[in-house]
Amino acid sequence: MKDKDVKPYNPTWWKWGDPKKSFHLNDFPKLKQFLEEKWNKTLVDDLVLPDRTSHITNSSFTETDLKSIFPNLKPDQISLDNEDRLRYAFGKSYHDIIRILTADEVRAPDFVLFPESQDDVVHILQQAGKHQIKIITFSGGSNVTGAVDIDNKEGLTCSLNMQRMNRLVDIDTTSFTATFEAGIYGPQLEKILNEQGFTLGHFPQSFEFSTLGGWLATRSAGQESGLYGKIEDMVLGITAVTPQGTFEHADYPKHACGIDIYPLFIGSEGTLGVIVQAKMRIHHKPQKYRWVVALFKDFESGATALRTMIQSGIHPALARLSDPEETKMLSLFSQTKKNFPKPWRFRKVLNRWMKSYLLSKGFQKPCILMMRFAVKNESDFAATKIAAQIAKAHQAKLLPASVSGSWEKTRFDLPYLRDTLIEHRILIDTFETVTYWKDLLSLYHHVKNTLDKESDYFEKGGLLLCHISHIYDTGASLYFTMMAPQEKDNELNQWSGLKEIVSNAITGHGGAISHHHGIGRDHRVWYLEKLSTEERKLLQAIKQHLDPNCILNPGKLFDKENRK
Amino acid sequence: MKDKDVKPYNPTWWKWGDPKKSFHLNDFPKLKQFLEEKWNKTLVDDLVLPDRTSHITNSSFTETDLKSIFPNLKPDQISLDNEDRLRYAFGKSYHDIIRILTADEVRAPDFVLFPESQDDVVHILQQAGKHQIKIITFSGGSNVTGAVDIDNKEGLTCSLNMQRMNRLVDIDTTSFTATFEAGIYGPQLEKILNEQGFTLGHFPQSFEFSTLGGWLATRSAGQESGLYGKIEDMVLGITAVTPQGTFEHADYPKHACGIDIYPLFIGSEGTLGVIVQAKMRIHHKPQKYRWVVALFKDFESGATALRTMIQSGIHPALARLSDPEETKMLSLFSQTKKNFPKPWRFRKVLNRWMKSYLLSKGFQKPCILMMRFAVKNESDFAATKIAAQIAKAHQAKLLPASVSGSWEKTRFDLPYLRDTLIEHRILIDTFETVTYWKDLLSLYHHVKNTLDKESDYFEKGGLLLCHISHIYDTGASLYFTMMAPQEKDNELNQWSGLKEIVSNAITGHGGAISHHHGIGRDHRVWYLEKLSTEERKLLQAIKQHLDPNCILNPGKLFDKENRK
Repeated sequence: MKDKDVKPYNPTWWKWGDPKKSFHLNDFPKLKQFLEEKWNKTLVDDLVLPDRTSHITNSSFTETDLKSIFPNLKPDQISLDNEDRLRYAFGKSYHDIIRILTADEVRAPDFVLFPESQDDVVHILQQAGKHQIKIITFSGGSNVTGAVDIDNKEGLTCSLNMQRMNRLVDIDTTSFTATFEAGIYGPQLEKILNEQGFTLGHFPQSFEFSTLGGWLATRSAGQESGLYGKIEDMVLGITAVTPQGTFEHADYPKHACGIDIYPLFIGSEGTLGVIVQAKMRIHHKPQKYRWVVALFKDFESGATALRTMIQSGIHPALARLSDPEETKMLSLFSQTKKNFPKPWRFRKVLNRWMKSYLLSKGFQKPCILMMRFAVKNESDFAATKIAAQIAKAHQAKLLPASVSGSWEKTRFDLPYLRDTLIEHRILIDTFETVTYWKDLLSLYHHVKNTLDKESDYFEKGGLLLCHISHIYDTGASLYFTMMAPQEKDNELNQWSGLKEIVSNAITGHGGAISHHHGIGRDHRVWYLEKLSTEERKLLQAIKQHLDPNCILNPGKLFDKENRK
Repeated sequence: MKDKDVKPYNPTWWKWGDPKKSFHLNDFPKLKQFLEEKWNKTLVDDLVLPDRTSHITNSSFTETDLKSIFPNLKPDQISLDNEDRLRYAFGKSYHDIIRILTADEVRAPDFVLFPESQDDVVHILQQAGKHQIKIITFSGGSNVTGAVDIDNKEGLTCSLNMQRMNRLVDIDTTSFTATFEAGIYGPQLEKILNEQGFTLGHFPQSFEFSTLGGWLATRSAGQESGLYGKIEDMVLGITAVTPQGTFEHADYPKHACGIDIYPLFIGSEGTLGVIVQAKMRIHHKPQKYRWVVALFKDFESGATALRTMIQSGIHPALARLSDPEETKMLSLFSQTKKNFPKPWRFRKVLNRWMKSYLLSKGFQKPCILMMRFAVKNESDFAATKIAAQIAKAHQAKLLPASVSGSWEKTRFDLPYLRDTLIEHRILIDTFETVTYWKDLLSLYHHVKNTLDKESDYFEKGGLLLCHISHIYDTGASLYFTMMAPQEKDNELNQWSGLKEIVSNAITGHGGAISHHHGIGRDHRVWYLEKLSTEERKLLQAIKQHLDPNCILNPGKLFDKENRK
């Protein structure tokens, strides 16, 4: 009656990722020094977790109840264990973590189920419908939007944990497709494909601790979206179980056979059904990569260069253009003890010389662009040269590819760094948006200006960093990071006040409330503002048909609030 | 009360395209000679159209009725004219044309409306709902599936002609997007974009006489889909008017804001709403093209070469691999009087020599592959060289690019040729499918074998040609052409018997019933066979919500048959 992998109560369970991986702010001495000087305070990691298992709401069920409600499940597929209930009650947002660390009581699901097959999911939804049990599908739990929050105050809630449905169903190396169960994690999926020379090409920052089903349910984007697209561009079909039956996708690569149903489950965040498997396009795993790294005089010229590239058909797999503030911060990250245990004296001299040279050339506020190309052939190689030419035509200086090395090594590690910052009582959160190229730079400035005008964030020493993280022919995403001293005993209010200002600024200026994190509870207000009455009614009609007892993730997305 | 552009009764109105364009089988002497010899008969064009306006069902309305039902419309937006009713009662399939030429009575819409704005469409749907008038949206009318057939035997039917909604709404040359009204024809849309240096890149064979709205409603594919994708890959958003309100798309390039609604209108064939405008990705119009033309020893090696190319990231804008039968037929087309008014004696000698050389090298049944690349830069140029290398690695002989010249000149003209063949009492129809690469060649052989086994088609001299017309990472389409002597006074039965055999063969062997023509009436049986009960019920629930009075193209796709 307990998740097989759960260890005895572990005070670090709420943190990101691998508990064995040690990350401490002391490992980033430059960063620590910078923040302490800027904020004129000593940073101490004294925000710690109380033993949470005693603070959690009681379950409304006993083991006997659950065995009789779900007769097809084995005992180890059902858990009433308080630690399991706790682990699956949250995502991994700043908002989640502050609640975990500070809330008096935690509203946890009444129990956790671990389906091992599509038939299990069918059984669970049938029985849940009969017993009015709400189902919150939980995959990697890496969401940062409150996606698995329990909305119904009085009802009965089950966390449906998909992690055991993690098999390869089929691989077709002639047609370059692979079908996986939805609960498979990124590394496991890539390992299976890599062994046959293939890759899916989906590497979100959460890659190590997120799943295929979660990616699809939230419209995830990976770091190499420039080459492989967002998750919705990679999927060929979805199998979803709903209370109204199971939907199998029409199995053709492209067709003209009427309306496709499976796109309804993309971005549905558990409201319409449970994604149990998906058929995906796969690609030859590239054998070679080539980095092109450039320094621009300003964010504007870097953005224009990126736009010119992609609109000329040049597709860096990964492209990341940091604004001046983030470029400066990256230099603090990259010179940690960990990455360079024995800093060269020569490097210091070189850095100093480089800085004064750049200043003399007008690089007062340099912006770094890192691009990684998959190079399979001469055509790809020529594309990297064109990219470099376009950067130079926009007055950039090319930097050695090695500059990207530390970023690459730590590409999935930033969430660990975030956790140690939170323990040091630092507010740290990210928000992201997407808009058309036409509006991108004005949106960028609007967000910064609004935060300045409508709060004392910058006066109190708050930092705002930004980078362009994903580029398309028609537009690009902006990814912002906030760092500020935490207001003790006012952590949640401080956060929600800033979240509101920034989210209003984004959506009021043509930006989407999310490019790849999703909606959950945290973005719902802004999502609903943009949803027309017609769309909302149509989505409700679809839900009414698929989920007549309203058991699936109630209160999320377009759902009627407070409906029985 | 008459379509402004309609000329007085024109006995060629049922034919494809521009009535001024003259096409006659006599212009293709090699083809004519080949067919006459093969079928041992003289081909005469004696299948002609009677004056149809007197054979059409009476309208249930008077002008006064319609003025009072649609008070917001101007008189010239309403037509009861028999010729208009006739023109908009059919698509352009072989099935349509035989019906036009031979049926005793034609079931025509009761009247035709010509909306000029979104408001007009809203008004029309509102009033039609009140008066139980069925609405069949008609764009270019180029469909070959019976898409605009009237299904309801007793009801009142309006043909909603979208051709006056043909404006550019917005162009954003920074973000590479353009929004057009749905009734705009291909050439007009391209002209507007070309003037600013852009292209949509959508060139179906029907290009000159089909519209943006029609392309979206039927999941169209253009000849350059290898570079630009199918229409569903190009669209960023759709505005659709339904009886339940107007749906505007969420206007972001990519987002993670829940479920997208607009994909429901793609492939909806007029059943859920009227597409009134669409926002599309546009591209720099390529300045240069490069052809790569190759001759393969067989269809198999050509298909494998194409698969290898696209799976290596090499994207010919256009790729067309003909099977041996089609390759032979193309040589009859390309040497017409029209294209080569004064055939060189030298060319004849050369051709003869070439033929014997190829035979000596094992090219008994050569298959021609024509590929056109857009070449914007060095990377694209390198891709053309790689494509040629891959072809050679599969034992192909490269041919001069000029071979493609006659195909290119006549790329939109085949439907004209079809019409003169029909007048010569030749059965000519095309059917197309798509499947995964793994199954492509076995599907190809299965269709041919089934036709051979289950009919006397080949014994009676029937020809079956095939080419791969569109390629994707995961699969490709097969495009078949049938040509056979028509059975006089049994034309429709002859056609439907063959259609059934071929369609069963396709769908029974993993092929989609359509890759880009759509469903309409003609493919509905096979569409419904593959539609699961769950999908059909969900689609019906969506229709019930959007179109509660069931006025939109009744009896099509998933609709309940005979429902009131």
